[in-house]
Amino acid sequence: MNIEQLRADTPAVAQLIHFNNAGAALMPTPVIDTVTRHLQLEARLGGYEAAAQCSAELENVYGAIARLINAQPDEIAVIENATRAWDMAFYSLPLQAGDVVLTSTTEYAGNYIPYLQLKQQRGIEIRVIANDEHGQVSLPALKTMLEDERVALIALPVIATNGGPVQPVEQIGALARAAGVLFLLDACQGVGQMPIDVQKIGCHMLAATSRKYLRGPRGMGFLYVERSLCQNLEPVFLDLHAASLQTSDTFEIRADARRFENWECNVAAKLGLGAAVQYALAQGVDPMWLRIQQLAAYLRQRLADIPGVTPRDVGSLTSGIVTFTHQGSSAAQVQQWLAAQDKRINVTTSTFRSTLIDMQDRDLLEVNRASLHAYNTEAEIDTMIAALSCLPSA
Amino acid sequence: MNIEQLRADTPAVAQLIHFNNAGAALMPTPVIDTVTRHLQLEARLGGYEAAAQCSAELENVYGAIARLINAQPDEIAVIENATRAWDMAFYSLPLQAGDVVLTSTTEYAGNYIPYLQLKQQRGIEIRVIANDEHGQVSLPALKTMLEDERVALIALPVIATNGGPVQPVEQIGALARAAGVLFLLDACQGVGQMPIDVQKIGCHMLAATSRKYLRGPRGMGFLYVERSLCQNLEPVFLDLHAASLQTSDTFEIRADARRFENWECNVAAKLGLGAAVQYALAQGVDPMWLRIQQLAAYLRQRLADIPGVTPRDVGSLTSGIVTFTHQGSSAAQVQQWLAAQDKRINVTTSTFRSTLIDMQDRDLLEVNRASLHAYNTEAEIDTMIAALSCLPSA
Repeated sequence: MNIEQLRADTPAVAQLIHFNNAGAALMPTPVIDTVTRHLQLEARLGGYEAAAQCSAELENVYGAIARLINAQPDEIAVIENATRAWDMAFYSLPLQAGDVVLTSTTEYAGNYIPYLQLKQQRGIEIRVIANDEHGQVSLPALKTMLEDERVALIALPVIATNGGPVQPVEQIGALARAAGVLFLLDACQGVGQMPIDVQKIGCHMLAATSRKYLRGPRGMGFLYVERSLCQNLEPVFLDLHAASLQTSDTFEIRADARRFENWECNVAAKLGLGAAVQYALAQGVDPMWLRIQQLAAYLRQRLADIPGVTPRDVGSLTSGIVTFTHQGSSAAQVQQWLAAQDKRINVTTSTFRSTLIDMQDRDLLEVNRASLHAYNTEAEIDTMIAALSCLPSA
Repeated sequence: MNIEQLRADTPAVAQLIHFNNAGAALMPTPVIDTVTRHLQLEARLGGYEAAAQCSAELENVYGAIARLINAQPDEIAVIENATRAWDMAFYSLPLQAGDVVLTSTTEYAGNYIPYLQLKQQRGIEIRVIANDEHGQVSLPALKTMLEDERVALIALPVIATNGGPVQPVEQIGALARAAGVLFLLDACQGVGQMPIDVQKIGCHMLAATSRKYLRGPRGMGFLYVERSLCQNLEPVFLDLHAASLQTSDTFEIRADARRFENWECNVAAKLGLGAAVQYALAQGVDPMWLRIQQLAAYLRQRLADIPGVTPRDVGSLTSGIVTFTHQGSSAAQVQQWLAAQDKRINVTTSTFRSTLIDMQDRDLLEVNRASLHAYNTEAEIDTMIAALSCLPSA
């Protein structure tokens, strides 16, 4: 990995330490240039005319995403954000009364609320898979749960918003396939951070975002839907792009995953997502993942040395999202202390409102979250540790 | 109206004639500057940190939109685009078997397909309101149709994508209110072009886009939902922003129209939409509407003088969208002829696939569309007329 090049592509690192990559990473120069160049083109030619000029480049976005996750381009939909990408998959499933959805303790409230909504509306049942001794999904527990034929879906995040374990998604996928159960993977924190291979994982659907570890623009995401499933899944919303009017009484839904898109999109941001994927592929996801894990391990070790600070991550495999609590300070106080003008270190907070079950299980109300990317350095970590050690209330 | 200032704010008009404002208008400098400035801020501070710094400006977007359409800020949701804004309203309605949806002949296929989808899925019935002698919704016909108590919704565009009449929306709204029927207005081509006042119109829901006559960025739109309806309308999608998890088994949907949003958005484009609305308010929608109508009238009159060219707009009140056919050339040929490097005039085509019922009624397969904005000029129209008069196949 050429860390100097990574940092040169990220000019802001000269002024600040950005450990909020699980919120939104700093966009590298090729991404920001792609987005602003297209906006300028729109102002110069008109929005439709600029898109027409970039039609090949727009098409390449699908190919790049497909390469990144080992899918086919026709299995990719580019959607406004990961939430709506996940929604288009989840809400389009024909779940009925009595159908069981299995999820993990680490599920995000933004996904859990939809489960509860369909529980209210349709009478589905939600079951939370127990964790093993490492704090991640217990595969034996999952296997037992899958014996119930009412299980229709497994849906969980590969990495939770508040860190914790990298779920054993390949094993989960294998169990799902063996049981003939659909598997919807929320890869928001995974894509761009770690290798995500839909063939190896065996998930049927996967939603991801642009702005986090992929380092793309905000307001953009994508959905993968396995080809054989796609044609049997009628999108909950349709428009002129997802379907076409055949007569005044009949319409036809397109065959590929773009049936989950709609016609209009933020073209500049879509091209920016494409540039971000190309950038990740050029760096290599494998070496980035290795470096992120090394940096995170170093941060956890250093945090443990500060009196009153407790690292909070669990799991036999952990990610670049490092969470911790501080005995004498609230998470907001820690965030503000580090963000102050003399330090300029971006970390964030994560509360029980985002991951209720996990936080209740672990008896936590809030944590701080420092999420590291490959462009971060050990020196930055040392600076944060020094700053945290001086927190007055410590 | 200070046309010189309008044009100075739109530098591209020095190089091209943009008559595709019904597709995507040219963004004025204050809009493009707002968007690019925020992208730069994101690259400098981080995406979340930049949004936090702009929280007051982001809040003002709601106030500006509310002023533009005479609503309250809590009745506004800012959504990725008008399609998804309309979808969030339409698909959230509790329409059931036997419920009747009334629409106009001018309805967009992108909305008509959803009607057909709910006809298939839920057994709703679609009825198309007959036109009067001017080619716009017949108010007596509508009044008669509203006598049927199964009518649950009137949904139509104020101005169609292929031009045609400005529908008498205030009278339609009054009839809807008198009958106790919901009215969903597609104002995509209306907002920014003509005065749109939800109090005067009496619509319960309105969807609009940023990129057309409002001159905002692509990939952004908004939804208005009347306050009293909002709280009774459960959004078809929910997330952590639209609702909050109270316990692991209960959630609460927020009271305001932002229940139709989701947490993530393209912040730069949202600020750009705000800047576009402020720009429209500063110019004044009333004088812009007057000028657009004058320009369009002049273009229709000039078109009628060209042998083989037929203006195709109908309606007692027409808009800035001017449609025509050319006897000797396909719509694509006309578009390409005008777009050629020596002319650089942007017009577009509209086919029966976009507005099937209207085009069938009028026995048309396709038209050309020249959509004018206040920054266009009579001199530009003269140039287009001259270019069109020289079309070889004429």
